[in-house]
Amino acid sequence: MAAVRLLVSCPDRPGIVAAIAQSIFKLGGNITQSDQHTTDPSGGLFFMRVEFTLREPADRAALGAEVDRLTHAYGMQIVVRFAEERKRVAIFVSRLEHCMVDLLWRWKTGELPMNVTGVVSNHPDLSSVAEPFHLPFAVFPVTAATKQEQEQEILACLDGQVDLIVLARYMQILTPRFVAAYPSRIINIHHSFLPAFVGGRPYEQAAKRGVKIIGATAHYVTEGLDEGPIIEQDIVRISHRDGLEDLVRKGSDIEKAVLARAVRWHLEDRVLVYQNRTVVFA
Amino acid sequence: MAAVRLLVSCPDRPGIVAAIAQSIFKLGGNITQSDQHTTDPSGGLFFMRVEFTLREPADRAALGAEVDRLTHAYGMQIVVRFAEERKRVAIFVSRLEHCMVDLLWRWKTGELPMNVTGVVSNHPDLSSVAEPFHLPFAVFPVTAATKQEQEQEILACLDGQVDLIVLARYMQILTPRFVAAYPSRIINIHHSFLPAFVGGRPYEQAAKRGVKIIGATAHYVTEGLDEGPIIEQDIVRISHRDGLEDLVRKGSDIEKAVLARAVRWHLEDRVLVYQNRTVVFA
Amino acid sequence: MAAVRLLVSCPDRPGIVAAIAQSIFKLGGNITQSDQHTTDPSGGLFFMRVEFTLREPADRAALGAEVDRLTHAYGMQIVVRFAEERKRVAIFVSRLEHCMVDLLWRWKTGELPMNVTGVVSNHPDLSSVAEPFHLPFAVFPVTAATKQEQEQEILACLDGQVDLIVLARYMQILTPRFVAAYPSRIINIHHSFLPAFVGGRPYEQAAKRGVKIIGATAHYVTEGLDEGPIIEQDIVRISHRDGLEDLVRKGSDIEKAVLARAVRWHLEDRVLVYQNRTVVFA
Amino acid sequence: MAAVRLLVSCPDRPGIVAAIAQSIFKLGGNITQSDQHTTDPSGGLFFMRVEFTLREPADRAALGAEVDRLTHAYGMQIVVRFAEERKRVAIFVSRLEHCMVDLLWRWKTGELPMNVTGVVSNHPDLSSVAEPFHLPFAVFPVTAATKQEQEQEILACLDGQVDLIVLARYMQILTPRFVAAYPSRIINIHHSFLPAFVGGRPYEQAAKRGVKIIGATAHYVTEGLDEGPIIEQDIVRISHRDGLEDLVRKGSDIEKAVLARAVRWHLEDRVLVYQNRTVVFA
Repeated sequence: MAAVRLLVSCPDRPGIVAAIAQSIFKLGGNITQSDQHTTDPSGGLFFMRVEFTLREPADRAALGAEVDRLTHAYGMQIVVRFAEERKRVAIFVSRLEHCMVDLLWRWKTGELPMNVTGVVSNHPDLSSVAEPFHLPFAVFPVTAATKQEQEQEILACLDGQVDLIVLARYMQILTPRFVAAYPSRIINIHHSFLPAFVGGRPYEQAAKRGVKIIGATAHYVTEGLDEGPIIEQDIVRISHRDGLEDLVRKGSDIEKAVLARAVRWHLEDRVLVYQNRTVVFA
Repeated sequence: MAAVRLLVSCPDRPGIVAAIAQSIFKLGGNITQSDQHTTDPSGGLFFMRVEFTLREPADRAALGAEVDRLTHAYGMQIVVRFAEERKRVAIFVSRLEHCMVDLLWRWKTGELPMNVTGVVSNHPDLSSVAEPFHLPFAVFPVTAATKQEQEQEILACLDGQVDLIVLARYMQILTPRFVAAYPSRIINIHHSFLPAFVGGRPYEQAAKRGVKIIGATAHYVTEGLDEGPIIEQDIVRISHRDGLEDLVRKGSDIEKAVLARAVRWHLEDRVLVYQNRTVVFA
Repeated sequence: MAAVRLLVSCPDRPGIVAAIAQSIFKLGGNITQSDQHTTDPSGGLFFMRVEFTLREPADRAALGAEVDRLTHAYGMQIVVRFAEERKRVAIFVSRLEHCMVDLLWRWKTGELPMNVTGVVSNHPDLSSVAEPFHLPFAVFPVTAATKQEQEQEILACLDGQVDLIVLARYMQILTPRFVAAYPSRIINIHHSFLPAFVGGRPYEQAAKRGVKIIGATAHYVTEGLDEGPIIEQDIVRISHRDGLEDLVRKGSDIEKAVLARAVRWHLEDRVLVYQNRTVVFA
Repeated sequence: MAAVRLLVSCPDRPGIVAAIAQSIFKLGGNITQSDQHTTDPSGGLFFMRVEFTLREPADRAALGAEVDRLTHAYGMQIVVRFAEERKRVAIFVSRLEHCMVDLLWRWKTGELPMNVTGVVSNHPDLSSVAEPFHLPFAVFPVTAATKQEQEQEILACLDGQVDLIVLARYMQILTPRFVAAYPSRIINIHHSFLPAFVGGRPYEQAAKRGVKIIGATAHYVTEGLDEGPIIEQDIVRISHRDGLEDLVRKGSDIEKAVLARAVRWHLEDRVLVYQNRTVVFA
């Protein structure tokens, strides 16, 4: 028995849900979870995520034919995913370990359904921390002058064998060329409540502004710095007692939690992107 | 154009969603929101709330026929609601005003889509507080000896002209006979995080136990005291600094918020009850 | 018996707490609450709020003498407040009622220890809403051309008889001259999680950016728009389902809660300002 | 320079703070943090935590003399702690790793200021998980019949060389004799929002009751099961979508966070116990 997920996007119009549900019924599928969203009841965009079980995993040809039919008949964009096909994930880090360790631990205990292919870093510092997880740890040093070249080497190393890149406090800004190679497939954790405190040193900025709450934001990476579609955010309360090191410590826990949720939702095909925003069928 | 809501419950089996969606399509309806839940992927219960717009509000006969057909063909229980038919609500209070005032204010400003028919109390104290809202304020004093009689009078006063009763800190325990007259149609706010601190004086109990968080719970009233299906809960953090009066004050804000959310979801037909639990399609 | 509060600010150095505590002991006072904060253990600023009971309320001369002595001996700035002297508060509104109604209700039920002297508005719209509270409701229409003049009229109307101005969604930007007349005595509620979404239409900005959490911020008003010292912030989670009107509705509840907490803390002399930040001894 | 902490408990009366502050001043100490709490302004208990720096760490004799003097003059109970003397901690586990791994990771990265002396378990399962932390991992199997004996062996193994025991999901109930050996020095994490769902299988209980929020509670262990003084609690929101395994997963994150905060506060001497409650000077 295979668990199949369809991610559907199209202009809203009557009959869409009936058509999709009818196709799944014809395939002998049983819907186990279904979510939909219409951006505007009077003529907006329609998004749907439907998960169903198919008795015959081999019967993908019939599924493909139905998807083709729906695509042409309704102008739908349909992405088909099989839950059993785990996504291949590369984790990028620099010198801070907490997000990397948290993801690897959730992976190793089976909480996150992914295949981690390796860790990429611009520094060798964390290789010993990653060691107990028995993963390739590839170091690509970088300077302002060598960034183009370094990114080319990383792309060559990934070799298209990766479905998702997670920037787990990777302190480098990726070039548009790199980003374009993995559209909506690079998740970054930014250690502030975006759009507050874009860019560098957000905890210092937060301490200076005297905010009473700090946050973290997981988003897909786009060309604009910290401007990509937000997947998840969360916050923690602080007070005048908390110095910069307290902000870093409290914020670290939020970063881990937010990033883990965003990665989970991506892995489970729960995130759709439109107009620089996300629909999260969590 | 009418906004129609179907609330569907039945044993899960393939084809249900297709059948419902097909019926709506045949009726010319456009689905604007749809949620479903299956309690157990391998043979559980299926719940669905689907909201759609019908061009012809007069065409209720066709809708009724489709609902009948689905009911018989699939063993579905289907409740049909029209958004434009606002529920008639009676608010029960005793001597504490905050929940009543909050509900009435949200009603008057149009935030809660309901028709408040009046306030019922076992004390006259709050009549002047309710006065600016220009509502009937009916006082039914009660003692242990007169409870049966008092409830009969209230039932007679309501005269079946009420769709929902909200116990906005009504400090009387309703008898099973009264509860039976309004099944899943009486919402109570309990000032604790149920099942902690069932019964009387939950804030005193919380202070004595030394908890670090207090809460409030909105639930449908059943025969068992504070044991009905929970609709919504929320909490607020406290510390050793907070005395009993602080718990009461901080708790009051949570009571208001939780009750308002539960009432809103009930009014919008977002709550389904099964096995003493709720499915909330919020 | 009088409840006295001292708010102390000075450069940190050994012996300060001993000196203050000794003075209170000499006065026969019993400390009921005491909080202190040092910005930097190695030579920063020292802040203290100490609340104590004095048996002889008439004995203010002795208190004054002790405060003078401490002021000169340690270079302290000391503010003396008596809990029984309730602050006089003017509430400024425009057309949105929720914050005003919430504050007035908390005032009328005794939750907020203040004397509301009246409501000031640039529109007459809310006068009927305020009517049940039996307060002066003064309307000062304003245009870009008449702002200076209008503010002069408001200042004349307040006549220095007000200790705190609360901008309860007053949609006018105050001129520096007006702000200078009430330094650290004007509290504004901004309907975003500052510094995100400064300025106009923050809910629209939030919807456009696709954030997953919205917030509200209470701050003292300074010359810079939305840049004054933050007193309190809070947030509420939203999703792709929430349209602009949902953000407004959910945000309204947070605005009310945040503003009420900030006003309470100010009324209880729990907020100290330094370097555009606040120390809140809550 | 030594950082000293005094934890003071005594009946409230005027002059206490002055006496303590004066003593610290005489010792040449500079107060860096100070918190106090009076349970009842009209004659309750007084608690204080004061942290100060002493220039002469060797001058502990003078400190001891001052503490003795205060103890006798005011009937104070005073505990003296030096921040540099890290507490020795034993972590008890059974088969679930998440709390143990989280604590060990926070210890290894320096976030938790403690010396972990080893891990104690009634099962060998987690020894390989603990292996990268290079700690003694002692296995003491237990049955109902051998519990007394097993506990004796553990006590012998600890040999009084441990300041704190953390039950990081140790699934055994300790006997009163064991508990008496470490009064207010055993912290347990219970995977529910106490007092809701005392005892076994709280997540199952929560799922059955249909709550909308689950929680975790860190408390000192006393004779009564799950009845000891609560140090910290936190919650996470759930919905009808969350099955038992989701509750376990979401709850695990809360367990880790709550336990880490409680342990941190204990290590920093921020928790005082009275009447089965805690004062937490966080």
